[in-house]
Amino acid sequence: MTHVQQMVQTNPTQASVDESTLVECIEACFDCAQSCTACADACFGEGDLQMLARCIRLCLDCTEVCEATGKILSRQTAFDAEMARAALEACARACRICGDECEQHAEHHEHCRVCAEACRRCEQACNNVLSAI
Amino acid sequence: MTHVQQMVQTNPTQASVDESTLVECIEACFDCAQSCTACADACFGEGDLQMLARCIRLCLDCTEVCEATGKILSRQTAFDAEMARAALEACARACRICGDECEQHAEHHEHCRVCAEACRRCEQACNNVLSAI
Amino acid sequence: MTHVQQMVQTNPTQASVDESTLVECIEACFDCAQSCTACADACFGEGDLQMLARCIRLCLDCTEVCEATGKILSRQTAFDAEMARAALEACARACRICGDECEQHAEHHEHCRVCAEACRRCEQACNNVLSAI
Amino acid sequence: MTHVQQMVQTNPTQASVDESTLVECIEACFDCAQSCTACADACFGEGDLQMLARCIRLCLDCTEVCEATGKILSRQTAFDAEMARAALEACARACRICGDECEQHAEHHEHCRVCAEACRRCEQACNNVLSAI
Repeated sequence: MTHVQQMVQTNPTQASVDESTLVECIEACFDCAQSCTACADACFGEGDLQMLARCIRLCLDCTEVCEATGKILSRQTAFDAEMARAALEACARACRICGDECEQHAEHHEHCRVCAEACRRCEQACNNVLSAI
Repeated sequence: MTHVQQMVQTNPTQASVDESTLVECIEACFDCAQSCTACADACFGEGDLQMLARCIRLCLDCTEVCEATGKILSRQTAFDAEMARAALEACARACRICGDECEQHAEHHEHCRVCAEACRRCEQACNNVLSAI
Repeated sequence: MTHVQQMVQTNPTQASVDESTLVECIEACFDCAQSCTACADACFGEGDLQMLARCIRLCLDCTEVCEATGKILSRQTAFDAEMARAALEACARACRICGDECEQHAEHHEHCRVCAEACRRCEQACNNVLSAI
Repeated sequence: MTHVQQMVQTNPTQASVDESTLVECIEACFDCAQSCTACADACFGEGDLQMLARCIRLCLDCTEVCEATGKILSRQTAFDAEMARAALEACARACRICGDECEQHAEHHEHCRVCAEACRRCEQACNNVLSAI
């Protein structure tokens, strides 16, 4: 059992959505925040600024939104569905935009392929929680 | 001239929206992130958990969204309107929800009154940038 | 292979420390940031403010330091040992302080026990990277 | 009176250090986080990667540490001097390292000059709080 699972289950307030759906989304958000931070850095190290400027920019932005959403979902006390929705919708959009861009470089840069995968998984996980709220 | 203004103006890439509208929004985002962090803490120090639980929760959440948005707007290279919109819409919503809650305690707690003010200003500033994109 | 591992390995710039030591630390930082956010919320939901105020406060603080350190370590381009050390030392200290506090409530609150575990693992992982730099 | 000042004064728990010293530091941390985010982006837009890679990297890192420290200092409930010291020492170091780098490009890039200024002010403000704890 991961720490995220344990933290969700031991919270005195029950989760507002199905536990496994929530856990998956929290883990996907933190994972995608890491991948995007690392992909921005890796792209930057490739030195091909002409080609990768948009990817770097979107990865930096996507990191922020994933981080915010992962932390908001980690809270179960005094849950507010509208606040959760605001964050989740922004996160699904950010991951879609960033994933689309990363995918375009996936053939040439393995880090972009991995990051696109993390973005897709996070986008899906956010949409799953949105459906469940 | 504030540092934010100077940073916007000295960026080699021109801002995608009117400079003063952008500066105001960046400053409002960082200011609201600080106010919300401090208001969650102040409410928590009041000890009136029954009454203030929702306020604490929403202030913590609003902090994350304001921070993310403030940093996304601080970047001018390879601007993506759709990414900016995702963040700004989430931020305007978060500030509205949090501002509404803070306002309900404004009479009894001065920190809630100040924080509601910071939320309103940030909500408005986000909407102004949204109109300008 | 986790995304973190893949991102470390596919970066065009080689990691400045042994890869598995680095990966473990990045994962521990993000994991501890999540556990601390969730533990602050869970403690807050217990309602026992008298007893848990310090735990909530330190968990919120520890989250910030872990997040910052996890992101700094995720970058391999233009690595600066002194910057890494500043973050890692702060993170090891924050995790020690927060882990000590959580441990005191571990018997009564399972979330504090899990969070103490995440803090210990992160403290150790930071010290391992510090030794390797 | 700024929002930061008002938030510090209306907190039910008195600040652990002299109020104006604290306010100055909180404001400097958020200001420096913004300047560093913007400077990384501006340097990146200059396109002179060979020259500015280290500056970009350090600005991104410094942002994280300033943000964390600004939020930790914004909390007055259950203050822990050792946690505050861990964050403040990391922040003073990060700002010194980043400020030194920015200063080297100050002649050619106005954004680096402004960012160096924000770093110096934040480094000093952190050291002032450290002396006062």
